[in-house]
Amino acid sequence: MSLAIGIDLGGTNIKAALIDGDSSSLIASISRPTLDGEFVGDEPRFAHTVRDIVHELEAKAGQGKLCVGLSAPGLAHRNGRCIDWMPGRMHGLEKLDWSAFLGREARVLNDAHAALLGEVWIGAAKGCQDVFMITLGTGVGGAVLSEGRLLKGHIGRGGHLGHITVDANAPKDIFNTPGSLESFLGNKTLQERGAGKYENTHVLVAAAAAGDAEAQTLWLESVRYLAVGIVSLVNVLDPELVILGGGIASGAGDQLMQPLQSYLDDFEWAPGGHRIRIALATAGEWAGAYGCVYHCLNR
Amino acid sequence: MSLAIGIDLGGTNIKAALIDGDSSSLIASISRPTLDGEFVGDEPRFAHTVRDIVHELEAKAGQGKLCVGLSAPGLAHRNGRCIDWMPGRMHGLEKLDWSAFLGREARVLNDAHAALLGEVWIGAAKGCQDVFMITLGTGVGGAVLSEGRLLKGHIGRGGHLGHITVDANAPKDIFNTPGSLESFLGNKTLQERGAGKYENTHVLVAAAAAGDAEAQTLWLESVRYLAVGIVSLVNVLDPELVILGGGIASGAGDQLMQPLQSYLDDFEWAPGGHRIRIALATAGEWAGAYGCVYHCLNR
Repeated sequence: MSLAIGIDLGGTNIKAALIDGDSSSLIASISRPTLDGEFVGDEPRFAHTVRDIVHELEAKAGQGKLCVGLSAPGLAHRNGRCIDWMPGRMHGLEKLDWSAFLGREARVLNDAHAALLGEVWIGAAKGCQDVFMITLGTGVGGAVLSEGRLLKGHIGRGGHLGHITVDANAPKDIFNTPGSLESFLGNKTLQERGAGKYENTHVLVAAAAAGDAEAQTLWLESVRYLAVGIVSLVNVLDPELVILGGGIASGAGDQLMQPLQSYLDDFEWAPGGHRIRIALATAGEWAGAYGCVYHCLNR
Repeated sequence: MSLAIGIDLGGTNIKAALIDGDSSSLIASISRPTLDGEFVGDEPRFAHTVRDIVHELEAKAGQGKLCVGLSAPGLAHRNGRCIDWMPGRMHGLEKLDWSAFLGREARVLNDAHAALLGEVWIGAAKGCQDVFMITLGTGVGGAVLSEGRLLKGHIGRGGHLGHITVDANAPKDIFNTPGSLESFLGNKTLQERGAGKYENTHVLVAAAAAGDAEAQTLWLESVRYLAVGIVSLVNVLDPELVILGGGIASGAGDQLMQPLQSYLDDFEWAPGGHRIRIALATAGEWAGAYGCVYHCLNR
């Protein structure tokens, strides 16, 4: 057995798992609240919780110190020891050196990057070398695998697929990108897009399914923008597969995939008849933890 | 000396060079017309011309058979032996196995990919690991280097940076992409965009410089779309440098770079203060041949 610990440190919950790299089986898991904003002295409480979790999982494993893979929001440093940039929330996360703090080897990843690696290891992208994932939730995130390697980029910002323009004449998003994919698909912009009628995208999709014409128009417009974003990214990244993840994608299911496929029929380049293959994410709630372990064991 | 031959097989000209990989010096060069559409039996004339050129350059080198790097329009096959997909023109190029045809090791690349490698070896991107180039000419092309590797993708389509949407509500381009960068910047669409007033982008830029208000508006709109495309691609690819190549970029110079920089000031994410570095291509007319040799020697 080659055991490692994967920790998906999110803004709300910490999801940690002890995983066997050989069999990819989840041996034990722990989920605790992040308690963002609480501190122990000048250190964030979540860091202490992570350390406690590591000790508990190591005790279960009984093999001494294990490698820890950790993912979190923000841009991971090139050296893989910390999140280098994460303003605004999770105070105390930026620059925290996890190898030093935990006293054992730790490898740090951006959370979207980890989720994609989870899909590559045990999910919809199993065995893929060239694949990208778009995550539809509060915001729109993403990650790219190219020739089997995470596209991290120069400062770790690679794969911010929600921040590509699809309408240059629409207002700028939080990262200054005019009319981005996130602007037209994230839950955070739905109040504005839907004139306050739909609390979140699940409600919007349900209303569309129930025959609400206004909801149908708004939802199809969103899906059309997604299709346009996907073909753009395919022309740049040329993957063998595109994965759609996040609560909006899993919630909408066919209500997303069917209109999306029909827009793609219209917008795809398809050189030599090659079509884009699209799939929903399947790795589930432990995807991030799996991705972290995969990253540890495939350095 | 580690000599190799680089051949940039274009629709109009074949530009070939004998290059020393150690010193990166160009030892000899040959430029001949492609004569697209002429045949020798059922083989395209350009293939015979390429073979003649290889023999001539090898005779100059006096070292027997050399490795040949060859670039051409279209999608290169994963095996690097042929252009796999190139419909419409250069009949006879698709599927032509250059190693077999030339009777020596040949490595085949897409032409935009080769041009970027030329910039990486001897041009504006010297020493870069993460960089992309956008080429502004008749169409808009591009190529991506990620962690020092060409992003070729699954079927060789990686880096088609001109075919990303910047306005989803504008008409589709030749590859079905709605409102693409190419639609707003390529010479091939200028007649339509400029209501026939400007023969090509050089004329447009000159008119803008001379105070023609209509030309200024049209040119600034194009540059704004370019800025939007660049920030989108930066959010996906996170390069250390962006290179602008092609006749429009070299012709416009500061008339491009100054307004572009000011739009980028507005649209950039710039996490942690990291700004995008933009440069004009500098490798010149032999960039493609250099890139082909670089690819041969760095397999």
